[in-house]
Formats: sequence, structure tokens, C-alpha cells
Amino acid sequence: MTGNSIGQCFKVTTFGESHGFAIGGIIDGVPPGLSLKKEDIQHDLNRRRPGTSQYTSPRSELDIIEILSGVFNGKTTGTSIGLMIKNTDQRPQDYEKIKNLYRPGHADYTYEKKYGLRDYRGGGRSSARETAIRVAAGAIAKKYLLKVQNIKIQGFLAQMGNIYCDLKNWDQINSNPFFCPDPNQLQKLDSLIRNLKKSGDSIGAKVTIMIKNLPVGLGEPVFDRLDADLAHALMSINAVKGIEIGDGFLVVTKHGSEHRDEITTQGEFKSNHSGGILGGISTGQPIVIHIAIKPTSSIAIPGKTITKNNEETQIITKGRHDPCIGIRVVPIAEAMTAIVLMDHLLRFRAQCG
Amino acid sequence: MTGNSIGQCFKVTTFGESHGFAIGGIIDGVPPGLSLKKEDIQHDLNRRRPGTSQYTSPRSELDIIEILSGVFNGKTTGTSIGLMIKNTDQRPQDYEKIKNLYRPGHADYTYEKKYGLRDYRGGGRSSARETAIRVAAGAIAKKYLLKVQNIKIQGFLAQMGNIYCDLKNWDQINSNPFFCPDPNQLQKLDSLIRNLKKSGDSIGAKVTIMIKNLPVGLGEPVFDRLDADLAHALMSINAVKGIEIGDGFLVVTKHGSEHRDEITTQGEFKSNHSGGILGGISTGQPIVIHIAIKPTSSIAIPGKTITKNNEETQIITKGRHDPCIGIRVVPIAEAMTAIVLMDHLLRFRAQCG
Amino acid sequence: MTGNSIGQCFKVTTFGESHGFAIGGIIDGVPPGLSLKKEDIQHDLNRRRPGTSQYTSPRSELDIIEILSGVFNGKTTGTSIGLMIKNTDQRPQDYEKIKNLYRPGHADYTYEKKYGLRDYRGGGRSSARETAIRVAAGAIAKKYLLKVQNIKIQGFLAQMGNIYCDLKNWDQINSNPFFCPDPNQLQKLDSLIRNLKKSGDSIGAKVTIMIKNLPVGLGEPVFDRLDADLAHALMSINAVKGIEIGDGFLVVTKHGSEHRDEITTQGEFKSNHSGGILGGISTGQPIVIHIAIKPTSSIAIPGKTITKNNEETQIITKGRHDPCIGIRVVPIAEAMTAIVLMDHLLRFRAQCG
Amino acid sequence: MTGNSIGQCFKVTTFGESHGFAIGGIIDGVPPGLSLKKEDIQHDLNRRRPGTSQYTSPRSELDIIEILSGVFNGKTTGTSIGLMIKNTDQRPQDYEKIKNLYRPGHADYTYEKKYGLRDYRGGGRSSARETAIRVAAGAIAKKYLLKVQNIKIQGFLAQMGNIYCDLKNWDQINSNPFFCPDPNQLQKLDSLIRNLKKSGDSIGAKVTIMIKNLPVGLGEPVFDRLDADLAHALMSINAVKGIEIGDGFLVVTKHGSEHRDEITTQGEFKSNHSGGILGGISTGQPIVIHIAIKPTSSIAIPGKTITKNNEETQIITKGRHDPCIGIRVVPIAEAMTAIVLMDHLLRFRAQCG
Repeated sequence: MTGNSIGQCFKVTTFGESHGFAIGGIIDGVPPGLSLKKEDIQHDLNRRRPGTSQYTSPRSELDIIEILSGVFNGKTTGTSIGLMIKNTDQRPQDYEKIKNLYRPGHADYTYEKKYGLRDYRGGGRSSARETAIRVAAGAIAKKYLLKVQNIKIQGFLAQMGNIYCDLKNWDQINSNPFFCPDPNQLQKLDSLIRNLKKSGDSIGAKVTIMIKNLPVGLGEPVFDRLDADLAHALMSINAVKGIEIGDGFLVVTKHGSEHRDEITTQGEFKSNHSGGILGGISTGQPIVIHIAIKPTSSIAIPGKTITKNNEETQIITKGRHDPCIGIRVVPIAEAMTAIVLMDHLLRFRAQCG
Repeated sequence: MTGNSIGQCFKVTTFGESHGFAIGGIIDGVPPGLSLKKEDIQHDLNRRRPGTSQYTSPRSELDIIEILSGVFNGKTTGTSIGLMIKNTDQRPQDYEKIKNLYRPGHADYTYEKKYGLRDYRGGGRSSARETAIRVAAGAIAKKYLLKVQNIKIQGFLAQMGNIYCDLKNWDQINSNPFFCPDPNQLQKLDSLIRNLKKSGDSIGAKVTIMIKNLPVGLGEPVFDRLDADLAHALMSINAVKGIEIGDGFLVVTKHGSEHRDEITTQGEFKSNHSGGILGGISTGQPIVIHIAIKPTSSIAIPGKTITKNNEETQIITKGRHDPCIGIRVVPIAEAMTAIVLMDHLLRFRAQCG
Repeated sequence: MTGNSIGQCFKVTTFGESHGFAIGGIIDGVPPGLSLKKEDIQHDLNRRRPGTSQYTSPRSELDIIEILSGVFNGKTTGTSIGLMIKNTDQRPQDYEKIKNLYRPGHADYTYEKKYGLRDYRGGGRSSARETAIRVAAGAIAKKYLLKVQNIKIQGFLAQMGNIYCDLKNWDQINSNPFFCPDPNQLQKLDSLIRNLKKSGDSIGAKVTIMIKNLPVGLGEPVFDRLDADLAHALMSINAVKGIEIGDGFLVVTKHGSEHRDEITTQGEFKSNHSGGILGGISTGQPIVIHIAIKPTSSIAIPGKTITKNNEETQIITKGRHDPCIGIRVVPIAEAMTAIVLMDHLLRFRAQCG
Repeated sequence: MTGNSIGQCFKVTTFGESHGFAIGGIIDGVPPGLSLKKEDIQHDLNRRRPGTSQYTSPRSELDIIEILSGVFNGKTTGTSIGLMIKNTDQRPQDYEKIKNLYRPGHADYTYEKKYGLRDYRGGGRSSARETAIRVAAGAIAKKYLLKVQNIKIQGFLAQMGNIYCDLKNWDQINSNPFFCPDPNQLQKLDSLIRNLKKSGDSIGAKVTIMIKNLPVGLGEPVFDRLDADLAHALMSINAVKGIEIGDGFLVVTKHGSEHRDEITTQGEFKSNHSGGILGGISTGQPIVIHIAIKPTSSIAIPGKTITKNNEETQIITKGRHDPCIGIRVVPIAEAMTAIVLMDHLLRFRAQCG
């Protein structure tokens, strides 16, 4: 059924395959009067796109955004915004050899079984390429959130394999190709990626997203809680296998007397174990989210699988892939977070504004 | 805005406060012709309700389900099913003393700031009491899933504090008050709860949900993936702070060569690190989900907070609460899982059936 | 699939059969802080309910509304409002004789074919009884619309058979049992109904709904235009077969030079052929809608039909029915109009507020 | 808020302004495996597009459809289908003179008041140009409906001004530029249009849509009835001011004994006053719908209006417009009908399939 839309008051609907003519989307519900230029979107697209550093996939997509509607004389008009990115570096022939088999860890098998056929070129719709439009939509949301309430969303690489990247320097995050907040770990990350490239393997990662200046009151109990909607949005990103809000799985061994955040005057809390959400509604504290990203399944190490005719075979993926998809997940996770926050800001206004 | 509905083809909408007249819901989209009796629902309600063992809240709600519509001569008619549970053991006077302050770790503060007022009796809508109707709705879904495809959903307590409950005996889960699958740990769990009662404190927990016999093909890319919708539904349960699908956060340190599940003939996989979902679509393997449940915030240990007038004060909660809410989350998590699976089974039929 | 909900920011979901235990609904998205008493709702329910005059069905339902949640200390809390009306004057035995045949003009045939079974008691879910909850939900919307923007919705009987009821006296509408705005026609209406009762037949009607003080700007292009959503809501009422906005079908023979409403200063128009909506958005002028209501199909005159076993037979309906359902449609149409306006007022706020 | 989507299981979302770079849409929920070529869509686009005869607007848009995704090797893949039509014959300079005033009968005034600004070029989003994508989406739905159940949808011009076009020859409808089913009226229609062109005026019309071979059982009570959803979809077309299902407003003067359709064996009815829908569910009889289309407001006859600065002025529209928009509404109305039927066919499958 329909599954290519997200959001209620701020709705993003997308289309597009990895090696089709274009990918694109429609952004509905954007308030009128917001200044919007291509550059506002391109900035985040550039953070996500492959081919920008030696640490990510060498596929060279320029990811040039085209705004097809909804903006007039530099301002949003309140009508739906059509976005498109043409696929330029298509190499569908790279995928001829996988058309009759299923890559382990990929959606080849499930797409084929669900739909009875599949666009095998680069994973078709299940490719990470699809996320470029999420990033574009998120850039619009980010701009609005910043403008009206100074809401800031920042993701960073918190861990890659056994390398921990603590939040030592917020300002450094966007100045290195790993989105790493700890300058002391850059060398280790570099080595790890180089080694993975040599061995043809990949590695998992943990990404943290922080939201600052979010007002109290966003989130709709009981099912559309802010944490529930964030979990939905972030889990919808390829390769995400886990979500934590605030203390996350640390709560399992915590006592109530340790975990609960005592409240002080002026709407502040003595701690933020909750991660900024209580009862599904934002508290006004920073929101902290962690997500787990699995290692890329497309690796050069042979793996066993079957063909469409149910015969055993072996696969080696030689496409252009990321040794650690977790790096490029950072701007995607920010975008999905922005989409959810934007939706909830508008939803709040509808009932309580 | 509206946040009290979940699902598209199988839609559950609920109402009700902890100490109001009743809680209830409307279940829309149930296929016609399903045998349905009150007993089918009551069974799971009894698993959830408080007052059934010394390990959970002593609030004594009988949770008698009433089916108000949608069933005729013992069969569902295809029209919306109205459900209601009257609140019988209301003690709103217990809550007079908290009407002017915010309990730390609860939604008192966020509800009041969002809506400008709140029903302070037992947390009102933010009370865990609200989940009884989720369980009732889930019972209908469970019955249908079992009938048409033998799909089975089982939750269990995987960890409480530092006590691990491994899946040693599937059949034992429902025969002990902890939903613990390891009979050897029952004594430890008993001791832990008794000690918490004495100290007036509470503890966190981890719950695992397993789904068996789910066919390949459920889940709608790209936003309404099965894992994304499960994350949404489970994170919408009070006190849940983390979700893992399959290996979850273990993937952070894993290589692609370890994580990807190689495929064998006959639709099987050599391993199930993915937890039964690839590209957001079920693989036909068992689905494995872990959730983290925070310790109950209502404890007898004094905590600092503020009043509505922004004055510092202290609170001791003497209501009737669970030392470990994780126990009672088991049937609730099963119910939310069932609601999502039911929705996706019907969604699959719409497009691919 | 699910079809028992309407609205996005103000969402109404209903349940209930004509002769089941109760009918009810959940109203989601009501802004917090609205004063709400049972009496606010009961007033409109009394205008709709049968048994109140000799001109409508003698079924004697008191239609006592119960507010089950969402209101605390006389104010809405922002959480979902549960509503219930118990069915008291059930006479399911009246319907034993129709259980195996299909009443012409009713939904018996289509429900049975769609769902494979049906609740034959009084039409089950397809009974006009279902509309009581629409009226209750509409009463909440009406109260809010009046409070915040002085928006007024008034329906009246515009025509019954060949009797025309012109808008001569707005204040008289609610003071006669026909909702007739022309006092001079009351005698004729009385005679017509009496004659229909004697002959056992029924008659169609036209109802007009007027909306005053609606601000400019409500309605969401391109699909959720205000007129489109009104058409949806009004056509969803039993027995409605036609909708007109403004000049309606009169436009077929009109020239553009006659139809277009010239604009004057101060947001006014020289005429209102458009009926207060341009491009799907309210103009600020009064909104004028006409709907056509078919004659009740349940009549005492024998009609040919078939049994479930596909044998020809004849039917005479001796239940308790309205000679002109158009009368009681007036408060129902007002309610559906109010539900749509409320939804669009909140939707406007979300994006443009 | 969001208003650019329609449908639940078959969802159409659109974007685009009259004189922007392109218009487009995303079609979500299309079953996999449907053969789909550009030509399938182009056929209906050609029926709608302007510049094809002397009877419609001379704006010369080729309306070349581009399928951007969702089709692989000539078959739909089950993923979302991206569609785009580039605007080629843009003449925004034609609209410079109206940028500071509001054309009577158009949405200029309401868009400006709602959003605070507007794309004044050709009406921007409120232009009839937007409907091209509806036609494209409808063409996909039509193809599927025909393939799986032989469901046929045919619209025709039933009346233009005082010229009646009875359904004399079904096969002639698509062979004349008026979609007129009565060959004897073609001369009169030609004369009327010629005269309107001379006088610079326009005329209203009535269009009928017939659906054949629709199975019994489509439509979701109580709010998403088939007739309610059709009313919504058709009223969302520019210029539509009225909708009738079956006998429509004729029912106002009808008796129940005349109106109800008696039922015969083999699922047939002795008449079809209901227009093929009972209780919101299709009966299996042909569905008959009439819609009223207002005369084009863009005419060469001067009209009074105001400027953005609230000064009185006068307007003469010299753009490229249709003397009777009703002609081109025919394929648009068919498309909207197809979209609704497709959605309901899939919805039926979800619950009852």
C-alpha cells in the first residue's frame, strides 16, 4: 500500500530509484512567506552525497536540486513544493550480474517476494539514494525551525566500531568528513576506514542527534508522541537497527530514584535522563537520540546466497559503496528529525496555538 | 492535534483517563466474519491488569471489557467495534495533593505546559491505565493473525535490573507472574521486587517480543517500513526509551561480513541478525524486537520538584504503583505489535493481495 | 477498510448500530480550555432525535449523551473526548421478518454482499441512528466556532415535495418542528405529512445550510478544498443525493458575465453566486449549500424484492419511520458542516496561523 | 495545511503552478506488474489539453508526460510513480497586469488573503493547468480498473447552456471535440461557442459520468462512502458547483414509492434511481453522476474589482481561455472518478478481499 509519505501537517512524499531518471518529492504544508533558495537545500545535500571524500562511496552524483514549484519570487507560497534530483552517474550495467540473485543483507529478496518483480539496478527504491530527497525536505524544515524558534538540530558520529567519538567540540562536527565531534579520534577513524577498504569489509556505527531550543509542548499523546514519531522516522532510514531516547537501554539497570529528572524552577530539570521528552511531549530540555546503523552489506567478501531459481550461489559486491554507512547517515538523521519536529510544531499550532 | 489513532487499514482510536468514568476505543477495519467473544479480549486484559500479583500495582481494576458494537451473533460484521472498560477503583482523592505540583519523571509538567490545564487524577490521559484499550485492540488483532496465518506474537521479560532472563523455556512464559522465560531466575526476580517494595524504589527492564510465522512481504517502503511502524507503536508505550530490531545496538561494532544474513534455499537464512526485516519488509524469518522500559517514576523516595506557582517543593508518591513497570509492559508490547502486524497484513492485501 | 473517521485536525470517529447496546464516538483534536457540558450537546441531539413531534418517527429514543473522557472540571483538556448514547428503545424483534430479505432503497443488499453478513436489526450500522453521534460531535464544533470567531451555522428546510420554504424569517427556523423559515408554509407541510402518513408513503426534500461570519482563507487546495470537504461530509449523510455550493446547477445556463461575483472594497462582493468559496477557499462571504434528500425508503406500500436465497418476494415496512427524513437531516447537516469548518479552522492555523 | 493528496490505498499527490517550470505528481499504491507506457497516459492527457480544437483555449501545451520512477521494463514495480509535465508555453508576462488586482470569479483574492502572497502567473496553483496531473493519475487507475474487472468510466457533456446532449450514441462521445453523445447537437454547440468567442463571454455546463461493470461492495461506511468520496473528488475540480448521484435533486419532489429501486433476482434492480450506490456502497448497477460546471470567469467583458491596495478598478481578461470549461472537464472528471474507484477497489481488498 501507500508508504511513501510521512507527516500530517508537514507532509513529505517521495519517489525514485537508484538508477532511474530522477528521484524527487513533494513537500506539502510549508508555511507561506519563507525565503527559500536552491542553495538552502543544496548545502545539506552536499553533506550527504557520495563521492565527496575518500571515506564514502565513490559514486559521483552531483545531486543538483531543482525546485519545480511552490516558490515564487524567492518565497514559499504555501502550495506544494516539487523537488527533483536527476540521476547522472547511472551505471545500471554494474547490476546486470545481480539481477537474478539476492544480495544478503539487502532488500532484493524481500522486494522480489513482495512485489513479484524488482528494479535490481542498485537496489532500485531500496537504495540509500532515496534518502537524498529526505535530506532536501529536511533542509526546508530546518530552515523554518531555525527561523521561527531558533531550533537547532545537529547529528554526529558517536561511535564507529570500537572507536568512541565523544561530544568534545560541537563546532568541529561539520568540519571533518566523519561528522566526528572529537578531533582526537580523526586519525583512528581514518585508519579504520582505510583498513576496511583493503579488507573489502564494512563496519557499524552509532549516531547521535541533538535538538536544542525546542519549546515545551510538542508531541501528541497517545500514539503520535514525539518520541514515537521520531522513532518511526529514524527507523525508516536504511540500515538503522536501534533507537534510544535519552538514557535509552541504560534505563534497564537504573532505579527510579536515579532515572527521574527532578524539576527546578524556571522550567529546568536537574538532569536529562528522559532525553527531553516526558509522556511523549517535549519538556523544553535538549532532545538526545541515539541510533544504531548496521555495517554496509555490500562488501567485497564473498557471501552465500541463492538465485531467483532457488539455486545456491555466491556473491561479491564490487559496486561503489561506503565502508561505514553511518557517516552519511548523519545528515539523513538530521533531516528526518527536522521533518518530525516541523510536523509537530504545526500540529501544536493547530490545536493549542 | 489528533494523536489518539494508530493504523491505516486496521485503525485503533482510544479515549479515557485514569480516573474518569471509563476508558474505551474504536477498532476500525476488522474483517467481517471473525468469531469474537468478550472472553477473547478479557484473557489478555487479565494478563495486563494490576492487582493480580504481589509484584505489580495493588490498584484493583477488574477491567471488564464491554463490546458495544460491530459484533453480531458472535461474528464481526466489518463495522467499527466500540469497546469500553469502566473505571471502578477510582480514588481521585489520592491525587488532591499533587494537583498543584509536577511529579518528576511524569507527564504532569508537559501536559500542563502544552494544554494549559491537566486532569491530575492519576496522570489523567498519560496514565498507564490508557494501555488497557491497546491490549483489548491487540487481542482482536492477535486472534485474526493466528486464525488466518498462524502468526504468533510472544513477549517476555528479558532483563530486570541486572537479572537476565534468557529464553530457556517458551512454554513457561505465561505461567509465572513475571513473564520470565527462565524458571531459574524466578527466585531472584521475587527478591528484587520485594527489596524494591521495602526501599520504595523501582527498577528498569528489558522486554523482548518475538513474532513467528509472519509471511514474507509485510511492510511498506519507504517510510512505513515494518520496522519503522513497529518502532513507532512500541515507542508510544509509556516508559519505553529504546527499541532494537534484531541485533540492535550490537551492530555498532559488527562488520558487514558478520552481520549480513546469508541466504539458503527454501526462503531461509543462515542467521537472523536482521531480526526478520530487510529493507523494511518482513523476510519470513522470526521477528525479534527488544525494548527498554524505564523504572517507574512514582516512588516513595522523596524527590525535588516545583509547584504550578514555580515554587520548589518535594514529593513522595504513595499511590499504588509497580516496582517494575516492565512486567506489565509485556502484554502491552504484544498488543502494539499485533496492531501493527494486522495493519500491515491488510495493507499488503490492498496492493499485492 | 476503515471508514468511520472524518477530519484531520479535528477528527471524529464513530461506532454503533441501531439496535446494539450503544452508539458512540471519539472526538480528537478539540482545543483545550473550552467549556463543555452535557447540555451543550444535548440541545442539538434533541433537535435531531425521533419521537419529538408527530412529523417524525415515533421511535422514542431519549438520546442521553454521556461524556466519558476529555473534560475535567467543566473544561476540555485537549485529550480525546469519548461520547456514548445508550440505545434504550430497541425492538430488534421488529426486524426478524426482514432478516432474510433486502429492503429496497436500503443498504441491506449492499452490506450483505460486501461483508458476507449483516446486522439486520434496524439497518444496523446503516441506520440513521448512527447520525446522533455526528450531531453530538458537531455540537462541540459549533460551540467552539461560535466562541472564537462568532461563526454561525444554520440549516433549514428549503423544500419538501413541491412546497417551497423561502428564507423569510431566520428566527422562526428553530421554533417549528419542520425547521421551516417561512411561517406561511407550515400548514401545507402539516397537511403533506398527514397525507403521507395516511397513504403510507414518503417524500423527498431540499435542505439549505448557511454559514455566517466565516473568515476568509479556510480550505486547502487542491484536493481538500473547503467545498470538496463539505461535499464529502454532507454526501456521507444517509439519503443525501445531491449537493450544491452557491448557485449550484443554476450555473449550467449562466454566462460568465452573470456568474462571477464582482469585488468591491473592504473584502466584499457585489453578489454571492459562488456561495462564499473561490478556488476552494472561503471568501469571507456567507457560505450557502443546498442538499437533496431522498424520500424514506421504508414505507407501508408493498415493494418487490428478493430474499437471501434469491427468491422474489414482497415487503411492507411497518417500522417507525419518518415520512420525510429531510426534516431531521437539518441538524445532522449542520453538524457535518460544523465538523468540516472546525477541521479547516485548525488546519488553517497549522500552516498560516 | 496539507491538501495536495487524495486517496488512502491509491494515493495521488500533486504539485505545480500554471507558469512554473513543471507540474507533476506522485502516484502511490499502484499494484505491481501492471503494464504501463507513456502512451497509456498521454492518450487521456491529449483529450484534456488545450489548443486541440477551436472550441477550447488556444494555449498550446503539448503536455508531454514523463514517467520518472516506479516502472521498470514496462511494468509497475509497486513503488511510487513520479510523473512530470514540463510547462512549455509559458507567458508569464501576460499576467503582469493582474499582479496587483483580483480577477472576479478566480482564486486570486482568496489565495492572497490566505497565504499573504500569491503566484499571480495564470492563477498559479489555482489554474486549471493543475488538473493535467489528475488526468495522468486517472489514466493509470483507468488502465488497472479495466484490466482487472473490465470497469469502464465514461464522461460526456450533458448540457451546455440551454443545449441538451442526451446519451444517444455512446460510441460518438470521443469522436467529437465536445464529448457530446448526441450527434444532432454538434451544430448548435459549435454556434454557441462561436458566438461566445465573439461576445467575449462564457457559458456553464453539465457533465455526466457513467461507470459500468463496477462490482457490488465498494465504499466504506460511514464517512468514506463511495458517493461521499466521489463528491469530494469531483467537487475538488475547478469550477464544479454541484454534484448529483443518480436522481440527484429530482428526489426532492419524489415519493418513496417512486424512488426506491425494487430488487429482482440475479443482483439486478428494476430501476436505478439510486445511481448505483446504496448506504454508500456500490450495488453493482451502473453508477451515474452529474456535475455542474460554472462558466469561465476569465472573459473579455469588463468586470469591477479591487486592487491589492483596496482601490476600485476594472478588469478585462485577454488571456487564452475556454468559452466553456465544461468541455475539458470531461476527461478530468473521468480521472477523478477513476482515482476514487481505484482507491476503493484496493480498500475493499484490504478488509474483505
